Amino acid sequence: MQQQISVVTLGIADLARSRRFYVEGFGWKPVFENPEIVFYQMNGLMLGTWLSPALEKDMQRRPAGPGSFALAHNVPSRDAVQPLIDRLAQFGGTVLRPGDAPPHGGFRGYIADPDDHAWEIAWNPAWPISPEGYVSWGV
Amino acid sequence: MQQQISVVTLGIADLARSRRFYVEGFGWKPVFENPEIVFYQMNGLMLGTWLSPALEKDMQRRPAGPGSFALAHNVPSRDAVQPLIDRLAQFGGTVLRPGDAPPHGGFRGYIADPDDHAWEIAWNPAWPISPEGYVSWGV
Repeated sequence: MQQQISVVTLGIADLARSRRFYVEGFGWKPVFENPEIVFYQMNGLMLGTWLSPALEKDMQRRPAGPGSFALAHNVPSRDAVQPLIDRLAQFGGTVLRPGDAPPHGGFRGYIADPDDHAWEIAWNPAWPISPEGYVSWGV
Repeated sequence: MQQQISVVTLGIADLARSRRFYVEGFGWKPVFENPEIVFYQMNGLMLGTWLSPALEKDMQRRPAGPGSFALAHNVPSRDAVQPLIDRLAQFGGTVLRPGDAPPHGGFRGYIADPDDHAWEIAWNPAWPISPEGYVSWGV
């Protein structure tokens, strides 16, 4: 079995509001979009932002208090963490935790996207990022 | 800005129960584990399964009905979808939707992990998977 995640799909309430966060905030380019979903080609997987009723119909459940979860976007330096959090806050994000240093090293903060999905923005010097954006464990 | 997701972190209630689903169900090998977190090296990103109270403390919020979301693991053939769903159900998963064909093509079903995180198990012939497990949009 490949150790592989193919897609992360986030349920969203408003396509334009979500698109603004990802396209103008993160600066990412969609690879596909229609009136109910936007896909972004990520580092060896897809990020999909899909209207929640469609996603819930597809997976045949309406989440009622699912477990907590978080996505992370790592940046190459400590100094890049807070500016990205600030930028995302300008495009519809809600700061959960401003950047600070966790006990295990590095530097990170959290910001929720307009649909309340948590993104950790982190500098983690122990996890190298390749030019293609592939993150790996240690060296 | 790299179009890059570095980590997907799932909040979990019971480490051993979750580990059984991912290690025995999916057949994945941890790259790191301690009494509160297990990391799996995925296709250019990390999957973390972390005790929910620790994750919630780290991101400074307790989710109260966050938006819906789903993860996906794509397989190379239609015939591989249902057997993997069945296998995961044997290791603590709850079937949400048995495999069937969506209108947009391919074949897929959904199964929740022991902490109620939804995984879509899908065959999507339009999205090639490299030998390293990197998924890309069309060809």
